[in-house]
Amino acid sequence: MYPFQEGSFAVRNGWYVAAFSNEVGRELLPRTILNEPVVLYRKEDGEAVAVGGRCPHRHFPLGASCLEGDSIRCGYHGIAFGPNGDCIDIPSQETVRRNIRIPSYPLVEHGLWLWIWMGDREKVNTSLLPDLNEIGLTVEGMIARPFYAQEVNGRYQLLNDNLLDLTHLGYLHSSSIGTPENASTPEEITTKPGFLSSRRYIKNADAPPVMAHMGHNVDKIDRVVGMDFYLPGFHAGIGDQCYPEDHPEKPGEVISKARVYHAVTPSTYKSCLYFFAMASPDEKGLDGMYEYLKPVIEEDKFATEEIEKMLALTGGVPQDLLIKSDRNAAEGRRMLQEMMDAEA
Amino acid sequence: MYPFQEGSFAVRNGWYVAAFSNEVGRELLPRTILNEPVVLYRKEDGEAVAVGGRCPHRHFPLGASCLEGDSIRCGYHGIAFGPNGDCIDIPSQETVRRNIRIPSYPLVEHGLWLWIWMGDREKVNTSLLPDLNEIGLTVEGMIARPFYAQEVNGRYQLLNDNLLDLTHLGYLHSSSIGTPENASTPEEITTKPGFLSSRRYIKNADAPPVMAHMGHNVDKIDRVVGMDFYLPGFHAGIGDQCYPEDHPEKPGEVISKARVYHAVTPSTYKSCLYFFAMASPDEKGLDGMYEYLKPVIEEDKFATEEIEKMLALTGGVPQDLLIKSDRNAAEGRRMLQEMMDAEA
Amino acid sequence: MYPFQEGSFAVRNGWYVAAFSNEVGRELLPRTILNEPVVLYRKEDGEAVAVGGRCPHRHFPLGASCLEGDSIRCGYHGIAFGPNGDCIDIPSQETVRRNIRIPSYPLVEHGLWLWIWMGDREKVNTSLLPDLNEIGLTVEGMIARPFYAQEVNGRYQLLNDNLLDLTHLGYLHSSSIGTPENASTPEEITTKPGFLSSRRYIKNADAPPVMAHMGHNVDKIDRVVGMDFYLPGFHAGIGDQCYPEDHPEKPGEVISKARVYHAVTPSTYKSCLYFFAMASPDEKGLDGMYEYLKPVIEEDKFATEEIEKMLALTGGVPQDLLIKSDRNAAEGRRMLQEMMDAEA
Repeated sequence: MYPFQEGSFAVRNGWYVAAFSNEVGRELLPRTILNEPVVLYRKEDGEAVAVGGRCPHRHFPLGASCLEGDSIRCGYHGIAFGPNGDCIDIPSQETVRRNIRIPSYPLVEHGLWLWIWMGDREKVNTSLLPDLNEIGLTVEGMIARPFYAQEVNGRYQLLNDNLLDLTHLGYLHSSSIGTPENASTPEEITTKPGFLSSRRYIKNADAPPVMAHMGHNVDKIDRVVGMDFYLPGFHAGIGDQCYPEDHPEKPGEVISKARVYHAVTPSTYKSCLYFFAMASPDEKGLDGMYEYLKPVIEEDKFATEEIEKMLALTGGVPQDLLIKSDRNAAEGRRMLQEMMDAEA
Repeated sequence: MYPFQEGSFAVRNGWYVAAFSNEVGRELLPRTILNEPVVLYRKEDGEAVAVGGRCPHRHFPLGASCLEGDSIRCGYHGIAFGPNGDCIDIPSQETVRRNIRIPSYPLVEHGLWLWIWMGDREKVNTSLLPDLNEIGLTVEGMIARPFYAQEVNGRYQLLNDNLLDLTHLGYLHSSSIGTPENASTPEEITTKPGFLSSRRYIKNADAPPVMAHMGHNVDKIDRVVGMDFYLPGFHAGIGDQCYPEDHPEKPGEVISKARVYHAVTPSTYKSCLYFFAMASPDEKGLDGMYEYLKPVIEEDKFATEEIEKMLALTGGVPQDLLIKSDRNAAEGRRMLQEMMDAEA
Repeated sequence: MYPFQEGSFAVRNGWYVAAFSNEVGRELLPRTILNEPVVLYRKEDGEAVAVGGRCPHRHFPLGASCLEGDSIRCGYHGIAFGPNGDCIDIPSQETVRRNIRIPSYPLVEHGLWLWIWMGDREKVNTSLLPDLNEIGLTVEGMIARPFYAQEVNGRYQLLNDNLLDLTHLGYLHSSSIGTPENASTPEEITTKPGFLSSRRYIKNADAPPVMAHMGHNVDKIDRVVGMDFYLPGFHAGIGDQCYPEDHPEKPGEVISKARVYHAVTPSTYKSCLYFFAMASPDEKGLDGMYEYLKPVIEEDKFATEEIEKMLALTGGVPQDLLIKSDRNAAEGRRMLQEMMDAEA
């Protein structure tokens, strides 16, 4: 489906964020991932697990059922399933056939997130998870927080496209985090298997409005703006602000540093899950960004949902106009399509 | 459609409840039955009638029109139809062609209900209506009340499945009318043409919470729990509670008795009408059950609607897992499919 | 699609009302017309223009973007388009290829309305616009007002059908502007290319309720009720009320006169835009009609939307019953189908 080839929905053999770690506890959390119903919870020993969210008996949602020890008991007829998906009790009979089960999914707690593997179990590979140091999360002095988990009523790739083309910062987010230089500055792109990186080094340009909000009354600044895409669904962003190199008093000195984390997980064919988190060495500043960035992320949600509506109106498969700044997004799409083709 | 064969929606030659008798008076009541628009009303002499709900001229809903004596005058261009469906007036012309008409449907007032026949008129047969004495409605000393008429956003068979498998009482309704023994007790099934009956004789088991609510502070009790399915859409339930046979003071004595009536009528392909009524020899207790059972019936509505959503997510034709307690529901489905096949 | 032949949606080569003139200013106004997204605005010199509402880059709605001088700058990545549809700036690159553009549509300010031409540019013909004198708008002494612009959730032809068959006045609008004589009086129909006219001369009949509302306590009156359809989407109505010719004091004297204007513009396949305006020589009376006619127009919207729901329920292609009063509506449908066939 758009913008991929007919019949291609999403990569299956890869890690997707299913939830922030702190969202999952001893309550059942239902989520739809890759168009499959999933339930997340923690066992009594604290281990988080993910199983299928549909009782195979009468299709009642297990996410609307009850946790009983480490098992889920279906809220309809009481059939119980262990955390590995095996049926362990059918109240209306004494024995349970061995072939009665729900799916269970590999789930890994890594950083702020719970990562799920919806694809082929034999291909599970934790070395494909983003390196936490590389994304700046576990770097000495950095403090990280999960910010918002939300469902977006637009197909996941629209949100990936958004993150792969940061020229939108100066327009969609002109009142907060962007300036026209986010678009006019040349982009440097690097790739390796499963990884796509964009950087812009903005020199001696106006500071975006967020700087004043943070108490930095600066005029011209240097900025590094980048985004590292760990396919299929995780984007680690970088935003460093410095005094320009010709600043009379503090040449090149760091003003502020931040890392942002966007996880995009396909939900239904036309909706996705979106997890935004942030890290900074400045704890107070980080707390202040929680409210400040809410409407900014809403702008991305708005763009995604409006485009989904536009696709519905125009029939769903428009011709894309490719411009110079689409090099990164086009490469991201190409790499995802290639992964899907390899799975087909 | 699920859970029936592709192309099979619902039995047509049979009686369905269109409304409780007390819902229909001198106001037009629109209902969608077997995916057809229907309007119900009473003539001036009190007789209830059912006609098609779509004006054949411009498809305006006759249910949003006006009753004029015994006729409906379309609210759009004023075309009038008598209770037998014949067009009796077209305001813009002096004569009316004889072939202009809307459907009229056989409608019978029987018990608390108005029963409609949507199928072949030549096959109308009132002896197919449930016997009111057999279902306990007109038994000496019993008092009966219509409780709730509601539209459920799930296909009718999901609600039939619910009623044909009472093992759900101890789980979906564990806080009110069920205990695990509803599932663990063996089921006795009897059938005859157009009829399917289930009974469970629960001995010396914990009383469900509803008993305390009714003021019966009993510990262990004997219960008879059953449901008689009068195909295609009426379920008469039985719930008798007694002291156990080894009770020191009142061995085998009746504590309470109730009859419940569930009518399930296909509305659109993915919604149904659900009519719940009750009878008891205890008038005050019956009145008290009106509020008490509202959330219980909501639980059945919730299960039905959630499963309909699950079918939409997963594509609509899941494989069912059949377990031992599905014998009755599977037989009910088989009998309905057989009736549909005979009509095809 | 119903009520036209399979594959026929709407005439393209013709003028449709896109907005009332006073709706469009220096804010972007998004509208969906003939299933295409359109944006309307005025240039700095006051000229109103219409361009496509979808950015060809990532399909962001230009109607949710920003006006910058005479151009629209896309709210997502900042690509700018001039009022003729040409791309004039891409912030992320220095040059713009000449073939990047959005549609621009001929738009004419004429009377109270902005008229758009969605079809073949080579066939644009302003002489096809309704003559303002002929429709009574610019007649000496007449005062005209735009009343309501609204979106109706029903296909446009249902609203055209409504306007082409005024026998509904005495039923759908029996509490305000109609009496049974609107249906029982013979209709006179005249046609010429692109034009279809209906008149009814009602003699010595009860005055509709609106007359009392306007302060005219009259008993029997003569009325002229007519509607001129300027295909494909504009209806000019006439409503003149006089004392009967045998009135003892004021034989044949005019009581009140009004012109009403209904513009019906196809929006999506199952919705339309509906613009209602009115003219009268009595300014105070005209102002009073603004509130009075709101619920009357709501009745037409209700009928249209209920019929659309009925079409959805019954599968969308019902057989129409044609009666004598359908001569005008049938001719209107035939003429529209002929125009569509000529375009195919």
